[in-house]
Amino acid sequence: MAQGLNETHDPARRSFVESANAPDTDFSIQNLPFGVFKPEIGTPRVGVAIGDQIFDVSAAAKSFDGPAAELARDCGISYLNIPMQRGAAAFSALRLALSRLLSVEHGDRGLRKYLIPMASVQLVKPMTIPNFTDFYASVFHATNTGRAFRPDNPLLPNYKYVPVAYHGRASSVIVSGTPFKRPRGQRKGANEAVPSYGPSRNMDFELELGMYIDTPNKLGEPIPVAKAAEHIFGFCLLNDWSARDVQAWEYQPLGPFLGKNFATTVSPWVVTAEALAPFRIAAFARPSGDPAPLPHLSDAEDQAHGGLDITLEASILTEAMRRAGIAPQRLTQTNFSKVYWTVAQMIAHHTSNGCDLMRGDLIGSGTISGPEKSSWGSLLELTARGSEPIALPSGEKRGFIEDGDEIIFRGFAEKPGFARIGFGECRAIMLPAD
Amino acid sequence: MAQGLNETHDPARRSFVESANAPDTDFSIQNLPFGVFKPEIGTPRVGVAIGDQIFDVSAAAKSFDGPAAELARDCGISYLNIPMQRGAAAFSALRLALSRLLSVEHGDRGLRKYLIPMASVQLVKPMTIPNFTDFYASVFHATNTGRAFRPDNPLLPNYKYVPVAYHGRASSVIVSGTPFKRPRGQRKGANEAVPSYGPSRNMDFELELGMYIDTPNKLGEPIPVAKAAEHIFGFCLLNDWSARDVQAWEYQPLGPFLGKNFATTVSPWVVTAEALAPFRIAAFARPSGDPAPLPHLSDAEDQAHGGLDITLEASILTEAMRRAGIAPQRLTQTNFSKVYWTVAQMIAHHTSNGCDLMRGDLIGSGTISGPEKSSWGSLLELTARGSEPIALPSGEKRGFIEDGDEIIFRGFAEKPGFARIGFGECRAIMLPAD
Repeated sequence: MAQGLNETHDPARRSFVESANAPDTDFSIQNLPFGVFKPEIGTPRVGVAIGDQIFDVSAAAKSFDGPAAELARDCGISYLNIPMQRGAAAFSALRLALSRLLSVEHGDRGLRKYLIPMASVQLVKPMTIPNFTDFYASVFHATNTGRAFRPDNPLLPNYKYVPVAYHGRASSVIVSGTPFKRPRGQRKGANEAVPSYGPSRNMDFELELGMYIDTPNKLGEPIPVAKAAEHIFGFCLLNDWSARDVQAWEYQPLGPFLGKNFATTVSPWVVTAEALAPFRIAAFARPSGDPAPLPHLSDAEDQAHGGLDITLEASILTEAMRRAGIAPQRLTQTNFSKVYWTVAQMIAHHTSNGCDLMRGDLIGSGTISGPEKSSWGSLLELTARGSEPIALPSGEKRGFIEDGDEIIFRGFAEKPGFARIGFGECRAIMLPAD
Repeated sequence: MAQGLNETHDPARRSFVESANAPDTDFSIQNLPFGVFKPEIGTPRVGVAIGDQIFDVSAAAKSFDGPAAELARDCGISYLNIPMQRGAAAFSALRLALSRLLSVEHGDRGLRKYLIPMASVQLVKPMTIPNFTDFYASVFHATNTGRAFRPDNPLLPNYKYVPVAYHGRASSVIVSGTPFKRPRGQRKGANEAVPSYGPSRNMDFELELGMYIDTPNKLGEPIPVAKAAEHIFGFCLLNDWSARDVQAWEYQPLGPFLGKNFATTVSPWVVTAEALAPFRIAAFARPSGDPAPLPHLSDAEDQAHGGLDITLEASILTEAMRRAGIAPQRLTQTNFSKVYWTVAQMIAHHTSNGCDLMRGDLIGSGTISGPEKSSWGSLLELTARGSEPIALPSGEKRGFIEDGDEIIFRGFAEKPGFARIGFGECRAIMLPAD
């Protein structure tokens, strides 16, 4: 078997939970992502997605042995940070045990009582997030956005050396399905002499991948790029909602602040790094002429296998579309393998000055845009800052997000010879400002 | 009595703890700041500074009645977040009770057994800090720094409308007395064709005031400027250490990141907003010609009393000075009343888009520079980016901080007719890079 692959990746394995065997399910028996659900009775606790069901891991703890059993018992809590203390090996053991228990070969044998229909419960934020950092890892996005904010100088000289990032706001990270209000803020239109305070006029999404840290490093002790993967628990979808007019007026010289920190939406299921192992590919190939990464960001193994082939999509569903029963309209489809910096390079850079990462920290990739327009990850890019609105099947047009619009992200990894690994959805409706 | 003043501010009150009556003490009986100490026996817990002693509040809980007693019992924990849930009224009641109990009039009566010499214990970080935000509230600092980074364009057009801020790193906030290593990072000298990764060459301090939030707001619900003061628990000294060369290379377009997040030092004692009530003064008078703050940042009461007359100083003690027994050399003395934006304006701005503040959040003022060179709050400013080094009594010179240097902040409020309210020290030694 290829490096990092094990029995849990076997595409021949099927589950006695029939919905997990559908070719288009996000939650095949090879995926087994972790999340937190709020049951009808009892307190929120950690579960594992399987097809259209949630496996109640802590309730089933006596079905496991050794480290898997210890971890399963820890899953009776409302956030993943405590179970994550058990480490990657325990999660690997639990995934292997689940893969066997939920298989057709093992069969039900009383396990169905631990299955809860996903549609019947609320999924909550899976993690207590001590710190949120957002990168800027797509060179296509950086160039597109740079052009909008700085036409003469789109890509700054540091971009190809520095995996640029900023600190986001941890408090306002919310889970998929939570509506948020259009934020107010200071903005100054091109024809306005002075700024005013009011509802943002240029609301946007940013299509990103999020990563959660499991193993902390000590303050003052950088994580080498070759060790960075050992600190990543798993991945989610992340919408870095942006009030572009507020951002444009505020962002110099200290970066984005109120243009971003009113809300950041994450998907509820955390797809483990292990489940994504079959989809590791070579890192993004830098165009010839680009500088090589500095030595502390360079690792041959990371260059060979540090990319991740994950498809990401964003769709829109307006209020008029909902009323007319029209399906969401896809706005873009992109791929995480197009980012300029690998996940390991982001972690190594973040800690290269000794900054300490904490268990549960969330790291966003930055908007994932590919080279073609059909793969750009924000409306700022797709509509040329609102000037080229997108036509919708309802007859509406959208330059930016309007009140009542829902933005829906999906993500998945697919490859011949392997089962589909999906992320579920990351969606939210923007309500009007008060 | 003037607005906001009560019996605890009475300058005639003296303590049976003799050291609290010294005219130059930071911790008079009128101050009673809260902090967390690690006793020789038992777990870290909340205490109150009085002269050179710490009053062990939870151990003495039976000395109090009502809300003060409830709060005192909560103080047997290693961070202030839990006691802060009791609210400002409970802290006010406890301060009043302490003011009476520790007075000469009340006398010892068995209370001395709750006093622990401050020098005999370790003071730890007083708060679990969910989020750290750093403002840029001194127009003199913004102009000086802007000149260093952007000679043609020092003060950006948004400055007089937007209380500019960015998200800092909560994980790397450390308490006074904790050494930190000179960080490594990417930097590119003016004469270098490409950047390299290595120890920062331009290490600096930033002299700031920090504020802690006690009362959270809900996501989506801004805090009006007139209500902002009700969300502030108290104040500390804050050193926003800065690697200027790393910052200069990385900061565009998303702001400071690795140039700052290796360490931020806070003083251990949190001086309550109540203790500082006598030192409220008019907000900074905007020069004529400056725009008025937008309506959502304007409040007549805040303009009349939203300033705080707090003197802040930074000193340096090099290794050579320590060895030779030379006292620390003062580098600057400034005053918080010189900041362009009031604390209430910072809070109102921060939440004006609905961003939620959490209990224990730390908000830095940004470097507090006054108009004269003697009051500038960083070496970047004081030494013109290292080009005009400062002579020290040891015969050394300093353009930036060198290995083994200790930077020491002090802060205090003084006014005829009132007792001195001090902050204690915020100090740390920079160790060599690994």
